[in-house]
This record gives sequence, C-alpha cells and structure tokens, in this order.
Amino acid sequence: MSLVVVGSVAYDGVETPHGRVDRMLGGAATYISLAASYFTKTRVVAVVGDDFAQEDTNLLLEHGVDLEGLERVPGKTFFWAGKYTPDMNDRVTLTTELNVFAEFQPKLPPLYTTAPYLLLGNIQPRLQREVRAQMNGLRLAGGDTMNFWIKDFREELLATIREWDFLLINDAEARMLSGHENLKRAARAILDMGPHTLVIKRGEYGAMLFRNDSMFVVPGYLLEDVFDPTGAGDCFAGGFIGYLAQQGFDLEADHISRGELSRAVIYGSVMGSFCCERFGVERFRTLERSEIDARFEEFRKFTSF
Amino acid sequence: MSLVVVGSVAYDGVETPHGRVDRMLGGAATYISLAASYFTKTRVVAVVGDDFAQEDTNLLLEHGVDLEGLERVPGKTFFWAGKYTPDMNDRVTLTTELNVFAEFQPKLPPLYTTAPYLLLGNIQPRLQREVRAQMNGLRLAGGDTMNFWIKDFREELLATIREWDFLLINDAEARMLSGHENLKRAARAILDMGPHTLVIKRGEYGAMLFRNDSMFVVPGYLLEDVFDPTGAGDCFAGGFIGYLAQQGFDLEADHISRGELSRAVIYGSVMGSFCCERFGVERFRTLERSEIDARFEEFRKFTSF
Repeated sequence: MSLVVVGSVAYDGVETPHGRVDRMLGGAATYISLAASYFTKTRVVAVVGDDFAQEDTNLLLEHGVDLEGLERVPGKTFFWAGKYTPDMNDRVTLTTELNVFAEFQPKLPPLYTTAPYLLLGNIQPRLQREVRAQMNGLRLAGGDTMNFWIKDFREELLATIREWDFLLINDAEARMLSGHENLKRAARAILDMGPHTLVIKRGEYGAMLFRNDSMFVVPGYLLEDVFDPTGAGDCFAGGFIGYLAQQGFDLEADHISRGELSRAVIYGSVMGSFCCERFGVERFRTLERSEIDARFEEFRKFTSF
Repeated sequence: MSLVVVGSVAYDGVETPHGRVDRMLGGAATYISLAASYFTKTRVVAVVGDDFAQEDTNLLLEHGVDLEGLERVPGKTFFWAGKYTPDMNDRVTLTTELNVFAEFQPKLPPLYTTAPYLLLGNIQPRLQREVRAQMNGLRLAGGDTMNFWIKDFREELLATIREWDFLLINDAEARMLSGHENLKRAARAILDMGPHTLVIKRGEYGAMLFRNDSMFVVPGYLLEDVFDPTGAGDCFAGGFIGYLAQQGFDLEADHISRGELSRAVIYGSVMGSFCCERFGVERFRTLERSEIDARFEEFRKFTSF
C-alpha cells in the first residue's frame, strides 16, 4: 500500500575518515524514499531548484519513486555540508544553504492525499501538521524531528506529534523532548504526548521500540567499515514504515503484534546499515531486495539465544 | 562444578548522582564471586587487611563462597574511591590505596587447584599467569584486564592471555589491545592472540560475544534507575562463567553450542543489571535465583522478533 514521504531533497558535501565528497544527492526525503522503495510504492513531496540533476531524478525513478510531488522552482537546491569526527559518532555542520527549501510549502498531488501511510521527515512542525491535515484515509502516520524544533518550536511540535501514531527520534532528541535522562522514563513521557509507538534510534548501538505495554530492543549491525553514516537514520525510517506499509499493517488495529513492529525495527536497522556502507546514496544503486532479506536473517542469527 | 575466582577484595568509596557512600565492600573478586555464587560453588583467592569486617566476611559466606583462599595479613585492605559523571558512563578515580594488595601473591589452597573453572579478575598479568599454571584439570579459564596492563605490560599480558579460553573486556580495552577502532576488526585481532572466545562489554549498550565462526550481540537491560555501576562488569563476568560452570560446559569440546555461550552472555548481562540497582553489593543481600531467571526471560521477550 502506498506511502507518502515529505522532507528535504538536497545536495550534501560530506567528509568522513574514509574520504570526502563535495557534492552528492542527499536529503531526508531522498534517503527515506530510496529505503522505503524496496518495500512499497513511495510518493515523495519535496522541492528542488533548477540545478537538480537529471541523473539524480533518474535514480529515484529507477526505484519506482513517484515524483509528481517533487516541485521544481527557480533557484538552487538545499545544500548541506558536514564533517564527521574520527569515531563517526558525531559531526560538525560546515555549511547550511537552505536555498529553495527556505520557502518550502509542501503541495500534495490529489493522488497522494488518499495514501494510507505517511512519513513526515524532519521539517518545520507546522508544515508537518498541515500535510497530515490534507490526508484522507490514513492508516498510519508519523515522523521525525530534531533538536532545533524541540528547543525553539516546542508548542508547535507538541501539537503536531499529538496526532501521530509513531515518532522516530534519536536518544539525544528523546532526552531533550522529554526532559528525562533515563530512556525508560523518557519513553513513558513521550508516549503520553500522543504517539502510541516510539522508536528511539541509537546509531551504532541499535534501536528501541516502546509502546505502553511492551518494549523491543535491537543492537546495531556491526559493520567492518562505516564509510558515511549520513542518512542512516532516514533509511531506518524508510525501512520501518516501508515494511509496515508493505504488510498493510495498521498500528491502531488490535491485530498488529509486537512481533510485527519488531520486524519493522529490524528492517529499519537493515536499511540504516546498508546506507553506511558507501558514501551518500551510492549503496542504493546496487542494493537488491534479496540482500535486505539476507541481512534480516543475519540479525535473527546474531541476536537469538 | 566449582569455580576459582582471583582478584581484589576491597573497600570502595563511591559517589554517583544518586548519592554517596564513603566506605563499603567492593573489589573485583567480591563482585565476581557474589554473582557466580548463584550458579555454582565459588572459591575466592584474594588478600585483605586486619581491618576487614566480619559482616563482610559473613556476606560472602552466606552466599556459600569458599574463603579458604582469602588471605588475611596485617595492614589495611585495598581502598578505592571514585566519582561518576552525571550520565554515569564514565568515572574519575579519587583515591587508590593499594595497601595489602600491593604485595598480593595469590596462594591456592590444595582443594582449589583441581577446580575445572577459573576466572582471573583484573590483576597483574604475571600473577594471573602464575595462578593458571598452578591449576590441574582446567576445563575453562579466562579473565579480565584493564588499560594499565594493556599499555605498560603488553608483552606479559599477551603471554598470559595466549593461554586463556576466553577474554572479557570492555570496548575501549578491546580497541586499545587490538589497535583497531572498529570492533569487528578488533575482535578478529584479539582472537588471533589466543583466546577462542572474546566477550566485549559495552556498559549500558550491552555485550558482544565473538568466536572465529560466530557472533552474538545483546543490548543492555534498560533500568529505570542506575544507582551505582561499580562492579557491573565483574558481575557480568561472574554470571557468564558461573552459568557455564553450572552447566558443566567446556568451551573446547565440540558439544558446546553458540546458544549455550549466548545464554551465558545473557546471564552475565542479568547479573550486571542487578548490580546497578543498588549501591555496591547491596542488591546481593536480597537477590534470589528466581529473580535472575525471571530477568533472563525478560531479555528473551524484549529481544526476540
């Protein structure tokens, strides 16, 4: 069943201990869509400038991503550049040029408004809320946010996530949003804010899923070489919602089991791990669904006892 | 089957965000023995001064720990004091008074030398090696070490662990010992140093077990309140080796499965998590085996998919 993804489509400059790329395709909506495309029909809502390259459009099209909602306007595409610390657990932003993204007003083509699944990438909470309000017949909606919105747009953010089924954030964001250092307390406080499902991403340490009555924790996949962690969290989101959309699951319905949600967390982890294996979106040029399922089985093997 | 534990029995002063205790029972051999005592007959080799309190002796005796190898000499017992950072992932040593521990020469009572299981806590590598040489009929031997020995006693340490079946260290120590930042590469390098089994402890993030042909990873147990992480790594070691000794497993034999080792890692994680719930060894005053098995089942529940 089809999935709508809203967020940034951008160009990134990235430096890691493994090398440096001055300009390559990036952006949350790009990573989410590419990852989700292995599971379900994905429709993207984003804006790019007139510098957006045909080959980048082609990569998304080759993955079957619907680009009807990809608006093209005069000007330059959003550009971000950053440099990772030697252990790659942190990064410094070197440049943020919002360009055409500064005036982004998500516009949903009519076909999109009836999609049952919605993933709102990290953008202004008010915009996230407006998109959700345009959707009819949603079975499952949720998304991501970041420290900037948590700190300076708290009320808007709270009004936005109150209507979400799930929230996907990292551990630092969970602590900031809840005011609790301890993740168990943080999770409880966040589940009281509206979403009935919370996924906390912990980078190389894996991910946790919290609902009021259950918890699931998975360690990270141990890669031999992490080339570039950029986009890994977005690919996690794409794998998570993509799998649920593929299965046609409805988190509100009674029939969804903790096992089904847990498997969505594993598929999220799998997609995040592939993302780190090459710079930018490179890994998605060759990645096959069979590799995804094989890594899912690897997760089962190294975590079961 | 019986287990010999060698290491420090000490007094600790600990400050965490939850409080402060100026002087309480501590030391690696204390934590290892208490944790292992829930699984198997445990015999301790250590030295204390004439200030060692009867009530502390009694706690160990109540857990069935054999104290024939606990030497008492004139002078003061080893004293360590430290203070944890607010997130409790790091600590600063405030005081280290080796006292009688400075001249520690482990002496094994005759009965100890035929025990099939040996856990060498973090002491001088040469002493660890001498203890192992006194044992007859070992089925399984291994232990712990620390940054100080890795850096300044590398050759002695390498000669020592070459004879071990397993090594239990934390991630920073694994990186230092191997010279590899990446834990997969680090593990491979360490397995080439002798031990056929490596357990890397990652604190709140859990633990990993590596053998040449397999890997097992478990996330940490999510506690609502971590009162005091002191001794958690030693309790992990006690649960790990204690379970293997209880089962009578022999890592060299063909019949040991990856599942059995994985369950030992879970029991280690369980014991480490209980340790953090109270200051020092307090939790072991009331802990029952049934609670341990219940938490083991909790691990199964929150990790399976």
